[in-house]
Amino acid sequence: MSVTAEEKGRPNTGDYRVYFKNSAGGFISPFHDIPAYANEAENIFHAVVEVPRWTNAKMEISTGDPLNPLRQDVKNGNLRYVANVFPHKGYIWNYGAIPQTWEDPNHRDEDTGCCGDNDPIDICDIGNKVCSRGEVIKVKVLGTLALIDEGETDWKVVVINNEDPDASDFNSIDDVRRLRPGYLEATVDWFKRYKVPDGKPENQFAFGGEFKDRDYAIETIKRTHAFWKALVSMATDAGGLNCMNTSLSGSPFCCSDGEAKAAVESAAAVGAGEPLPPSVDKWFYYEK
Amino acid sequence: MSVTAEEKGRPNTGDYRVYFKNSAGGFISPFHDIPAYANEAENIFHAVVEVPRWTNAKMEISTGDPLNPLRQDVKNGNLRYVANVFPHKGYIWNYGAIPQTWEDPNHRDEDTGCCGDNDPIDICDIGNKVCSRGEVIKVKVLGTLALIDEGETDWKVVVINNEDPDASDFNSIDDVRRLRPGYLEATVDWFKRYKVPDGKPENQFAFGGEFKDRDYAIETIKRTHAFWKALVSMATDAGGLNCMNTSLSGSPFCCSDGEAKAAVESAAAVGAGEPLPPSVDKWFYYEK
Repeated sequence: MSVTAEEKGRPNTGDYRVYFKNSAGGFISPFHDIPAYANEAENIFHAVVEVPRWTNAKMEISTGDPLNPLRQDVKNGNLRYVANVFPHKGYIWNYGAIPQTWEDPNHRDEDTGCCGDNDPIDICDIGNKVCSRGEVIKVKVLGTLALIDEGETDWKVVVINNEDPDASDFNSIDDVRRLRPGYLEATVDWFKRYKVPDGKPENQFAFGGEFKDRDYAIETIKRTHAFWKALVSMATDAGGLNCMNTSLSGSPFCCSDGEAKAAVESAAAVGAGEPLPPSVDKWFYYEK
Repeated sequence: MSVTAEEKGRPNTGDYRVYFKNSAGGFISPFHDIPAYANEAENIFHAVVEVPRWTNAKMEISTGDPLNPLRQDVKNGNLRYVANVFPHKGYIWNYGAIPQTWEDPNHRDEDTGCCGDNDPIDICDIGNKVCSRGEVIKVKVLGTLALIDEGETDWKVVVINNEDPDASDFNSIDDVRRLRPGYLEATVDWFKRYKVPDGKPENQFAFGGEFKDRDYAIETIKRTHAFWKALVSMATDAGGLNCMNTSLSGSPFCCSDGEAKAAVESAAAVGAGEPLPPSVDKWFYYEK
């Protein structure tokens, strides 16, 4: 599947968006129209990169907007940039989501005891390449961490870009531990502390912060894929989610290419962006 | 002193240079024409930023070229980019040098037992701001580490940008230890390991890797300033160093504004640069 990203609006402003197009040039939803699986037999999934490694702007698939473009999270009226918590600089992986998955807020996870966070499932790509915003990659699943964020389950699936020259060396979470010493500990540390500079408490984890292995992670993704199927077939109440799509013929939310194009045309025009705010330069330090 | 940087050549190529101009628009040498002291009574020094925090291109004052522009170090015919050694991303401070200082290769340091590395003395600015390449800042000295690099003394002076909103809180190396937990340890770790991805052994330190405090660091800078004075007055053999300057009236290397301009005019014209090489994306991991 060949997908390209198309920017709209002005970078680093509230009207900036990244839309997605298929190889025929038709607009699609990254949430609904990109298949979860790149290769089902080999458990290779697609992932949409929302935040490239070492950057700070918290871009995400906008689940409530038509065609679900990437947009920057807003908090208290301000565009949200994740703080640099020493020794980390920005996000320490390519961060993104697996399409066609949904962490159902009405489903209480048996293991974590918490409900889903109403978003597609998140991934942390440990590949060498710094991906671009909106890049769609194929990923191999290695394990998962269960962040508990304000009482909700928020899985962070550790993956490696399947095109990475080292990808064949990685088949389990233990391979990450062995071949990327310190990275798993840094990942837990990052998620634990990344909201502290914004005045929030440290995040908590299920399973005492231990990573679950590959098979558990794959089962978790499959479960969220099933929740998503129920969502787009209207078997589940969509709440505020926008399920407009252009490829799911069985879905009541399927629309024409023309309707999709019209949705994108309502977005702000491309324009000169703003510079990154100087606050993004700051490094926050605190004793662990 | 108001100094501006002027780029020549094509970024990320071998002909890229950064020259320096004084407030009258005359070209100057960042090595010789910017005073070491910004405020001698308060021990505030100038520093020239060669490598902004979180970047990789090893830019440095070219001690052998007329007017000593910044240029990128070349190794085995390739432009040199410092590797990212996990968990670090690029240089972890604004890195640069104090003008009008020289680590004399003919002088054996009594404490380290090693001779100087033939360069101006290096600084690591721990201020919050990410400076720009070629920015000239005023810095407060906090301490120093004594790196021993291939048998030569290479002082790394820890400073804070005197314009930093937190600068008044920092007056000693212990203030850094207390207010920036982990930063000094990361600094030692960085210098120890940064050449390992290039196939070099870990670097060594004098004083068992302990930082010397502010007063010791200031004395060290003053000593290198005296070595520099001997250099530009021809009391010391300059070896391959280029001492051309436009402001030291007592120096035999002092030249006219016209001669300085002619030196810059021989540089390559500004042009479209190359992208950063993909190797700069890579993170190197190894067990400590």
